[in-house]
Amino acid sequence: MGTLTLRQVAIDTYKENVAYLHRDCKLYRSEGFQALNKIEIQQKDNGRSIIAVLNVVDDVCITGPDELGVCEQAFEQLGGKAGIAVSVAHARAPDSLKAVHRKIAGDVLDFEDYRGIALDIAANRYSKIEIAAFLVACSELGLERDEVLYLTRAMIETGERLDWGEPLVVDKHCIGGIPGNRTTMVIVPIVASHGMLMPKTSSRAITSPAGTADTMEVLAQVELSPDKLHQIVRSERACLAWGGTARLAPVDDILIAVERPLLMDSPGQLVASILSKKLAAGANHLVIDIPIGATAKVRTRNSAMILRKLFEYVGDSLGINLEVVLTDGRQPVGRGIGPALEARDVMQVLSNDPTAPVDLREKALQLAGRILEFDPDIRGGQGYIMARDILDSGRALAKMQAIIEAQGKNPHPPEIGPLRHDVLAGQDGIVTAIDNLQLAHIARLAGAPMDQGAGVDLHCKLGDRVAPDTPIYTIYAAFPADFDFARELAAQDTGYTIGEHYVDERP
Amino acid sequence: MGTLTLRQVAIDTYKENVAYLHRDCKLYRSEGFQALNKIEIQQKDNGRSIIAVLNVVDDVCITGPDELGVCEQAFEQLGGKAGIAVSVAHARAPDSLKAVHRKIAGDVLDFEDYRGIALDIAANRYSKIEIAAFLVACSELGLERDEVLYLTRAMIETGERLDWGEPLVVDKHCIGGIPGNRTTMVIVPIVASHGMLMPKTSSRAITSPAGTADTMEVLAQVELSPDKLHQIVRSERACLAWGGTARLAPVDDILIAVERPLLMDSPGQLVASILSKKLAAGANHLVIDIPIGATAKVRTRNSAMILRKLFEYVGDSLGINLEVVLTDGRQPVGRGIGPALEARDVMQVLSNDPTAPVDLREKALQLAGRILEFDPDIRGGQGYIMARDILDSGRALAKMQAIIEAQGKNPHPPEIGPLRHDVLAGQDGIVTAIDNLQLAHIARLAGAPMDQGAGVDLHCKLGDRVAPDTPIYTIYAAFPADFDFARELAAQDTGYTIGEHYVDERP
Repeated sequence: MGTLTLRQVAIDTYKENVAYLHRDCKLYRSEGFQALNKIEIQQKDNGRSIIAVLNVVDDVCITGPDELGVCEQAFEQLGGKAGIAVSVAHARAPDSLKAVHRKIAGDVLDFEDYRGIALDIAANRYSKIEIAAFLVACSELGLERDEVLYLTRAMIETGERLDWGEPLVVDKHCIGGIPGNRTTMVIVPIVASHGMLMPKTSSRAITSPAGTADTMEVLAQVELSPDKLHQIVRSERACLAWGGTARLAPVDDILIAVERPLLMDSPGQLVASILSKKLAAGANHLVIDIPIGATAKVRTRNSAMILRKLFEYVGDSLGINLEVVLTDGRQPVGRGIGPALEARDVMQVLSNDPTAPVDLREKALQLAGRILEFDPDIRGGQGYIMARDILDSGRALAKMQAIIEAQGKNPHPPEIGPLRHDVLAGQDGIVTAIDNLQLAHIARLAGAPMDQGAGVDLHCKLGDRVAPDTPIYTIYAAFPADFDFARELAAQDTGYTIGEHYVDERP
Repeated sequence: MGTLTLRQVAIDTYKENVAYLHRDCKLYRSEGFQALNKIEIQQKDNGRSIIAVLNVVDDVCITGPDELGVCEQAFEQLGGKAGIAVSVAHARAPDSLKAVHRKIAGDVLDFEDYRGIALDIAANRYSKIEIAAFLVACSELGLERDEVLYLTRAMIETGERLDWGEPLVVDKHCIGGIPGNRTTMVIVPIVASHGMLMPKTSSRAITSPAGTADTMEVLAQVELSPDKLHQIVRSERACLAWGGTARLAPVDDILIAVERPLLMDSPGQLVASILSKKLAAGANHLVIDIPIGATAKVRTRNSAMILRKLFEYVGDSLGINLEVVLTDGRQPVGRGIGPALEARDVMQVLSNDPTAPVDLREKALQLAGRILEFDPDIRGGQGYIMARDILDSGRALAKMQAIIEAQGKNPHPPEIGPLRHDVLAGQDGIVTAIDNLQLAHIARLAGAPMDQGAGVDLHCKLGDRVAPDTPIYTIYAAFPADFDFARELAAQDTGYTIGEHYVDERP
């Protein structure tokens, strides 16, 4: 209808298109726009159009009465040119929202429904509140197995998809929740030493003290261009990079932006999220690690089995070769929690350092063994032994060093600390429980992952005998304020339970 | 933790607290804040704190690195002083969100749960996406009857509540959806002439071509201070004002801000919304009008009955004397659609003008009769006759004129039009259906309710015989662009069905 001048408003609204109209804008009044209305913005010269949610502005420094302000991502989508003419109209609700309403009413949706939803979400036609409505409708008992499959397929099809041109492209994924669980950085060099292709991209920490990308960054560059990444994978058969640059399963990123603040984590969304990303990244063989423990994401063997079946059903239907491994999630893996401390653990294991944490080594060997057995030439049950041989021989270390060199070695590796504080057991007994959530929280307050050298270093694990003055762990921090917060939290609750008897019952 | 300087960002985010941090703000990095995180903002001098959703800014003109920008409503909540010191920390999720997650998982919540949710929403502790999650969880088959009761009670208790100090305070409410349905402006003067207290506050149009407040504004001031409103009600026994100024059931306003863009309208939310507002406004006797028709909100007699039972159950439990009337919603009521046209219809009925629309008169008398029968001195069945006597005698008109004078007569009543276009039947036959939604849409495109004189004036109703050149309605508009859009839409589909046979079957 009316014409306005486009202007960027330098606000990052995180995956939501937001437009800003001045309250005195003639169109605002005459069209009866309201804040939170969705409007369609059309570029006059090329007809390109986007949908955005409207906010109303009372300051010409942000948007004037003859202008249309748009947030950063919307500005990009419109071509990134200020001053061009745009028209604005009421947006129709995206067609696929009807399917969301049917889902809310209890219907089972089909693939075409999910494809419509994924296409509209990928095109930024959904507002955050519409995405929230979709997520809640799908949550908990709301998704049939086939619906998870349809959603996963729809999420893959609405993004780019890598093709490595090889029959054996492997990947692994842990559903998360266990601090220090940095097995990936041991597994990748082992598997690549055997010659398998493992182009591993990982995320940064969202709510945890370190993601694999954060930990690898202690040793090497992880933000690589797609070209560089491909070149490294071709020469080294592997990489350990940050996955944030590719446009793989973009719907997943948009959904996560709403799931995270909602604290939602339904099995259907979890499976669709992981499998869509892995398949889009070109993996055709995948090992999924589901840790079980009282303070892990999955608390009982029963719920782990339900999740496993769902992974298997969707994975098999999509033609990916998938193995689910249920692991021990009762306590952190390794000793360090925080990027530099975890990188130290990983390098100790790869270097066959006699002081290396045994649990990290064993878990990594177990998972690497399962991946190696994807090789048709390897006899069932021999994977673990092969993985151990590769690690013990130093070939995994050499491969890791080659990957670090290829990605670009970090010339200034962070120091650990420098502030440090020992937390003592405070009583005689045996460590009978360690709270993953509490330890992760303490490490985050200490500054991890932003401060690479901050975190927690564990000295005692389950079953260890302690005296009152035994240091159970050390807190490291870079800044006094962080240091104090972390120490205070540990003083309230160390996260350790000290008892008299301990029976080692793996979940 | 760290301290920043408060600054207002002149953006109206419509019922959501939004805060803006510059990307280079030290706190943004060190605290690991992310866009869409919720943060707690504490005023340093008096300790007052609020919750807001974070957006990240790249322009110091909006928010500088040492500042914390907040949207208009958050700025008000913090006391409205720029430059004061505030601290910022990660906000804990509101406690009541656990109840929302239980609701999502299929639980039935109790009153304490709903009270916690309402308190947190009223205190702006919920983000829009959290509210969307709550609404979807409550939607459709999701709320037990008792839960609707608890939600309604919780919404009443978390706001102010008026007490008129009389045993008979009456109100009426239509669930909406029928253009031209301006019975309230006929009913209020009739009921007040009888001496009953009817302090009527109404809304403005949200998605319709006119609300009662928009239509009354054609004749008189409707934005009245609480003091003025009370004084008018005391002297005239009634008012016809806009209800937007009072803080009655504020949770309802916040929920509607999210329901509306989500296009959600579940029975439970509808009942809780209407009853909480009416009870908070001090009504103790209430008539609810539920129009039934193919293009009304409620399409079948069956679903109307379900809604009626829900209204009755919750109303009875809360001690309000409530009558539900199921009415004919097959077509618009009266002739005019749009503020000035509807005000004309109302004044014709009140003036006993022989050309006044009969259906508006009859429906208003029917509803007014039901309200009059709340008076214990009036015999059952006599209400309609009394209402008709009051109207025919001119007492209702005199009361309306007194209310208009008391509220402040509009010195410049809008003219209808001036642009006008007749839409013709185009064929011989009988009007067999009129689409409420299409007529409302045409009237809105023509400029209603922003342009008070714009809208649609119907010349034919159901059962009327037409020839090809019979004008079925006239479109009025103030601006050529609006005029063209409305005419185009009417040319695509007049909203009228012309057939050969018509059987008058009231739903």
